[in-house]
Amino acid sequence: MQRNWFLGDLLNQLLDRPDKRRGKDDKRSIAELCEALLSAEGEVSGFTLASTILDRYQTLDDAGKLDFFVYLNDQLELDAEKLADTARLYANDRSVDLYQKLSESAEPRRQELLRRLNQPSGATQELVAMRVDLLRFLKSDAELKRTDIDFVHLLRSWFNRGFLVLKQISWDTPARVLDKIVAYEAVHQINDLDDLRRRLYPPDRRCFAFFHPSMPDEPLIFVEVALTTEIPGAIETLLSEAREPIEAEQAKVAAFYSISNCQKGLAGISFGNLLIKQVVTELSRELRGLDTFVTLSPIPGLSRWLAGETEHPEHGHTSEAVLAATASAQDVRAMAARYLLLAKREDGMPLDPVARFHLGNGAELHELHADADQSPNGRAQSGGVMVNYLYDLNKTERHHEEFATRATIQASRSVRADSTAALAIKPRENTA
Amino acid sequence: MQRNWFLGDLLNQLLDRPDKRRGKDDKRSIAELCEALLSAEGEVSGFTLASTILDRYQTLDDAGKLDFFVYLNDQLELDAEKLADTARLYANDRSVDLYQKLSESAEPRRQELLRRLNQPSGATQELVAMRVDLLRFLKSDAELKRTDIDFVHLLRSWFNRGFLVLKQISWDTPARVLDKIVAYEAVHQINDLDDLRRRLYPPDRRCFAFFHPSMPDEPLIFVEVALTTEIPGAIETLLSEAREPIEAEQAKVAAFYSISNCQKGLAGISFGNLLIKQVVTELSRELRGLDTFVTLSPIPGLSRWLAGETEHPEHGHTSEAVLAATASAQDVRAMAARYLLLAKREDGMPLDPVARFHLGNGAELHELHADADQSPNGRAQSGGVMVNYLYDLNKTERHHEEFATRATIQASRSVRADSTAALAIKPRENTA
Amino acid sequence: MQRNWFLGDLLNQLLDRPDKRRGKDDKRSIAELCEALLSAEGEVSGFTLASTILDRYQTLDDAGKLDFFVYLNDQLELDAEKLADTARLYANDRSVDLYQKLSESAEPRRQELLRRLNQPSGATQELVAMRVDLLRFLKSDAELKRTDIDFVHLLRSWFNRGFLVLKQISWDTPARVLDKIVAYEAVHQINDLDDLRRRLYPPDRRCFAFFHPSMPDEPLIFVEVALTTEIPGAIETLLSEAREPIEAEQAKVAAFYSISNCQKGLAGISFGNLLIKQVVTELSRELRGLDTFVTLSPIPGLSRWLAGETEHPEHGHTSEAVLAATASAQDVRAMAARYLLLAKREDGMPLDPVARFHLGNGAELHELHADADQSPNGRAQSGGVMVNYLYDLNKTERHHEEFATRATIQASRSVRADSTAALAIKPRENTA
Amino acid sequence: MQRNWFLGDLLNQLLDRPDKRRGKDDKRSIAELCEALLSAEGEVSGFTLASTILDRYQTLDDAGKLDFFVYLNDQLELDAEKLADTARLYANDRSVDLYQKLSESAEPRRQELLRRLNQPSGATQELVAMRVDLLRFLKSDAELKRTDIDFVHLLRSWFNRGFLVLKQISWDTPARVLDKIVAYEAVHQINDLDDLRRRLYPPDRRCFAFFHPSMPDEPLIFVEVALTTEIPGAIETLLSEAREPIEAEQAKVAAFYSISNCQKGLAGISFGNLLIKQVVTELSRELRGLDTFVTLSPIPGLSRWLAGETEHPEHGHTSEAVLAATASAQDVRAMAARYLLLAKREDGMPLDPVARFHLGNGAELHELHADADQSPNGRAQSGGVMVNYLYDLNKTERHHEEFATRATIQASRSVRADSTAALAIKPRENTA
Repeated sequence: MQRNWFLGDLLNQLLDRPDKRRGKDDKRSIAELCEALLSAEGEVSGFTLASTILDRYQTLDDAGKLDFFVYLNDQLELDAEKLADTARLYANDRSVDLYQKLSESAEPRRQELLRRLNQPSGATQELVAMRVDLLRFLKSDAELKRTDIDFVHLLRSWFNRGFLVLKQISWDTPARVLDKIVAYEAVHQINDLDDLRRRLYPPDRRCFAFFHPSMPDEPLIFVEVALTTEIPGAIETLLSEAREPIEAEQAKVAAFYSISNCQKGLAGISFGNLLIKQVVTELSRELRGLDTFVTLSPIPGLSRWLAGETEHPEHGHTSEAVLAATASAQDVRAMAARYLLLAKREDGMPLDPVARFHLGNGAELHELHADADQSPNGRAQSGGVMVNYLYDLNKTERHHEEFATRATIQASRSVRADSTAALAIKPRENTA
Repeated sequence: MQRNWFLGDLLNQLLDRPDKRRGKDDKRSIAELCEALLSAEGEVSGFTLASTILDRYQTLDDAGKLDFFVYLNDQLELDAEKLADTARLYANDRSVDLYQKLSESAEPRRQELLRRLNQPSGATQELVAMRVDLLRFLKSDAELKRTDIDFVHLLRSWFNRGFLVLKQISWDTPARVLDKIVAYEAVHQINDLDDLRRRLYPPDRRCFAFFHPSMPDEPLIFVEVALTTEIPGAIETLLSEAREPIEAEQAKVAAFYSISNCQKGLAGISFGNLLIKQVVTELSRELRGLDTFVTLSPIPGLSRWLAGETEHPEHGHTSEAVLAATASAQDVRAMAARYLLLAKREDGMPLDPVARFHLGNGAELHELHADADQSPNGRAQSGGVMVNYLYDLNKTERHHEEFATRATIQASRSVRADSTAALAIKPRENTA
Repeated sequence: MQRNWFLGDLLNQLLDRPDKRRGKDDKRSIAELCEALLSAEGEVSGFTLASTILDRYQTLDDAGKLDFFVYLNDQLELDAEKLADTARLYANDRSVDLYQKLSESAEPRRQELLRRLNQPSGATQELVAMRVDLLRFLKSDAELKRTDIDFVHLLRSWFNRGFLVLKQISWDTPARVLDKIVAYEAVHQINDLDDLRRRLYPPDRRCFAFFHPSMPDEPLIFVEVALTTEIPGAIETLLSEAREPIEAEQAKVAAFYSISNCQKGLAGISFGNLLIKQVVTELSRELRGLDTFVTLSPIPGLSRWLAGETEHPEHGHTSEAVLAATASAQDVRAMAARYLLLAKREDGMPLDPVARFHLGNGAELHELHADADQSPNGRAQSGGVMVNYLYDLNKTERHHEEFATRATIQASRSVRADSTAALAIKPRENTA
Repeated sequence: MQRNWFLGDLLNQLLDRPDKRRGKDDKRSIAELCEALLSAEGEVSGFTLASTILDRYQTLDDAGKLDFFVYLNDQLELDAEKLADTARLYANDRSVDLYQKLSESAEPRRQELLRRLNQPSGATQELVAMRVDLLRFLKSDAELKRTDIDFVHLLRSWFNRGFLVLKQISWDTPARVLDKIVAYEAVHQINDLDDLRRRLYPPDRRCFAFFHPSMPDEPLIFVEVALTTEIPGAIETLLSEAREPIEAEQAKVAAFYSISNCQKGLAGISFGNLLIKQVVTELSRELRGLDTFVTLSPIPGLSRWLAGETEHPEHGHTSEAVLAATASAQDVRAMAARYLLLAKREDGMPLDPVARFHLGNGAELHELHADADQSPNGRAQSGGVMVNYLYDLNKTERHHEEFATRATIQASRSVRADSTAALAIKPRENTA
């Protein structure tokens, strides 16, 4: 508890520091300003120049922004000829001087530009927002991907796991941050702050997020947790307004029922694996009665897969029809189990993205539940089936290893039994 | 003031987070552990592997550390042949795929290793400390410089100005941090905490430092400021135990009398320019009566230069002798003025490193003071002369520009007059 | 900014401290527990006993609570005979020993009980809540007022102004506290957090509250402020969803448009005067462009007074009818001005409670606005008229003095003019 | 951890709030100012008046201060005649109105004055300091004790246990607060901050203090704790510079080796009992390996008692001589055991003040150690013997009860054995 003294105040400063964005009257073009920032002028006046450029960027329309990215992509490109020559020389003479030159020529100027832009307060967040624009332009202008590769390179370095901060989100969190949780929830929609209250206020609810010190109001990723006495088998039970909360101390199970990435501009930089493990550690420490850590996860690809499996143009059966037609909960679980265990991508990995994420983290398929998500979306994507992935931190490393190297899927006896159950209504026959 | 709420707590987490350094029983060599961290295993167990490697490193003796750096330098080197080939291909076909390959092959594996090491709490600080070791080995093993180039590349990115936090150091600062100020003071030695009290406690003293959020107890650079009614002309006046402090509100002048870099492991990454400017801004905001911002700076190269100027082996006059022999304060100032204005390096920049720093920041030579630093060190390096550099934020950009491009030195009329004063005792003659 | 370091953490402790409320199995009655707490047992086990009593109290139904207050009122009463005797002795011999005895016998035992109850974390808040119950019982059992006198005596001491903390409420405030603002707003209703957003989020809105360190989630009183360019003349303008906010730096006027006491349990302990003055000071410091501090206040007693003035049983005209019947804005203002200036209580003080509060604080009647509050409540209580009270801190002391001693009401020329304007429609005639 | 958000900031405000102490030009005497503060003027301008009075007080010399206290004592006295009359009336008619009058007349005006003085920031601390002066004057002017009774009455209410905050003091504590620890240490002297480092920095040392929110830099009482593997038997072992610290997790025993009251102005208001118990709770929570909580305490009255026992004018042996002359450690322990168990005041309570404190808290005499405090003071007061008092929270209530009602002293078998050991050198004989 002692360490807070220093830090509490330390960070205030980060936000309060002078950031009078001068330079609005600078008549130079944004490209000229970038050249200035990369020149000697940038050494002394970098702070002001960076502010001016970031402000200017925000005034640009899409055409202007595209121009800016094209400028980065083409004008601030590396000199491949020179790099090739230097690399060739260095291959023959591994001298320090040549390495220095190689190191310099191996990096396009736009990387240094981005670093120098990241000086004023709030700049990191603006650069992340800039990448959101860039990703949009990428769809129509694939060449810009070169610039995106450099964005990712820098952001990966800046958002290094060592700099992330785990933070509990609760009803004691500032409303400004709670607004973000409402906006970013990606799995089970939150309508407004009063709706969010149900997920944060009761004593058997938890929420944790990663933050970066230079973006203190912006969660990077968050996970919502329900503390329960048994492994939950339906999302409605967890989110029901009518439910009676338990005391946190009574809980045996921590159920991760929603995990949402927040920053589109950080796409491709993964935080989820570490978040779940840190939250498991954090909760274990707080609540010694907890002995089971599971998810309650959607199976987003099930209906699509079934539709493919059963695709007979002459009939046009949709997957929803298939799932709806399955008479029993057991049938639905059986199909889901087969999908999760058997449906693979070309590289041998599971077809289901959520499965890939959790199995890749070293979790195991623990239990399937029919009628677990009755929302329109839940019914549409998986006929309402959901699945628990179990996190046992003593086994995640080994499981991950086997999954990564041999694509081995860990599954409980229950899931295995589901997968081998005879189907009362065979989907394929059903569609016939 | 509102923003604190969130941040205060946010940062606690950074320090409190689970950091049980497991893996002490891992039998693999440090190189094998590094390979594991760089492999798929590192994806899931990176946190533990990084902790194990950092812990292992700390147990190594110098021979072991040297082996480790040689491993980084030689085994985790980039493949220059492949890079040359890829660059050549890319020079002819600027495709995104080739750029991706180029981007990957342009970076030696040790960079990714360092990034992956930076996961556990405290890792950043340990990597900075690692570089202190590396710099030591560099003296005898210049080849390791290649690895150092990569260290600098990463540290520059991580210690980007946008991530630094300005913080006031005062008597309300935790003792743990004050210890560091005592230890790192580089200009006018501080003996212990009770000595430090004289520089922090009185109402007319200020101290500011930059911190990085992931090293909250470690100042990166700090500056000590005296608030005065007139531009100070002697360090003793500022540090005297007997002096009567003034109220901060009475101050007209903020005198920066000591600026110290703290982290040897961050050598080559400059923070001083920005620190001074932010402190000027901060103080202007707090104390509206301030109208002058100056340094009271040493002239570390003066004696050495005079010694060189007067070097006649047959006489063996030392510079100290020369300065001691100069009869008058005016003579001393005259020599100092000539040194600062005229003594240049081959590249045309001033010979004096402190002058290069402040003039490079856009400050101007303002006034010279004889008998300003009577300490043995002060007498030895410059015969006791000190100089005020004046910071006028409205002019620093222009001054910097002229200094950077034309090596123009801004000097006040007073300094110019000193430089042209006839010497009562000409050093060269004096030595005859 | 330095001082925060220590305090931030200091207060955490207040809340985190061990408060395992043991003693649930204590079989004694609440009165027996109180006797124990007042006895020697209370010296050592006071913390536990106090927790037990406070917990027990919360389980009581109304009959049980009433019994408890009757017990306090009758059994923990002072010994008036003894007090009279001791006072008589002391009147004749002002010895220290007698004063000590007098001091002890002058205080009923229930005061010491309340002090000893205030030991566990959260106890202060529970005692304030206890008084809410007491005030309810007072209505039917006036004798309990004796106990209430002692509650007030202690609460006044504990909530001494020197212990209160001014705090800005904003969108960075934890949702838990914002919930309280929604609940406690007494003047212009707030529906939910999203409604509150309009009063906190825009840059030209402020809210400040007093807190007590031992009730950190509970505002005691808060004031809502609109920053404007002109003195506002209608509440709708301030609260309209459609309005365009201004930058805080552009503001000339700070308009206090709502002030709400939060704690029924602190009825009779006044915080409002100090709150307004501290907020004026705070805002003056933050925004140097501000030069006018006014309220936009309701006139809650106007309709009632007019009804009284025009009360003719044979007609039964209500005041609303009167105000509705007044043809012009000028007429309405004229009646309001007369009411505020002339309608007095028996003690010579203004009849209107809001007027008494602000004039008592040393403010002056500044301007009247017809059609300023079109809400049903606003129309009902004052026909929609509102009034600005002007706070000029250079004059409040003198104004207060004159108001307190001679009941002098300070009013602007504009209000005076309104008060002497001929009425186009005379209310009395109007009812004929 | 969540709650911090709000509080951290809340308290800053307490310190930062505007406290421009105006009124320096007020020409009235301090008594006139006090009358004004007690009058209607005090209602509105209380903040300024209180500041003026507190500032004025600080400029007074001793004669002026004495006058001020005499004014409080005599002029702001209660009206005993009126009180006696009102009490008599109330004895016959327990009406609410009479109780209100009684309540008002039972309190001298100086109490209200003190409450009204406690408005500006920092006032609480100044009033505590004022009482330090008062206690000094009491020695020569016993009549002022009446005023002191009122000071104590108010301070007891303000420093109610429910408002105190437990805070760990460590090397992360601001130097400003550490200075106070150095100054206030009353048992084993601390020379300076570097000396304090030995008691705070090592991992097996702890220090906790109570604070009041309105005096955040001022500890009220603090206790120093050593974490050890065995019950310590000598203070030198604990404070030795040479000792090798252990990891906190290895500790079995928490030894309270120094407890110091800090505020002379709060004399008579006891915090020690609660402090020890909260620290026991706090440490139990942090370090689950701890199973024993003891003190290592001085026996300040031993030598004096022995001197009395052995007082033979014809010999004039001092107690030191007696203790020095006792040949064996066993003898010394035997005498100490007899002293602690048998030496009583007239009221039957132990003669030794430290014993009264710990036994009164419900601790038990656990073990005696000869040669445990070799400092001059230790040798002088008790011949170097020290004693462990054992705190077993499961027994403290019962022990306290028996001690308070029957003066029963709990002592271990070891201490009882010491007390009955035959003395090799009988003190009385020894002095013959």
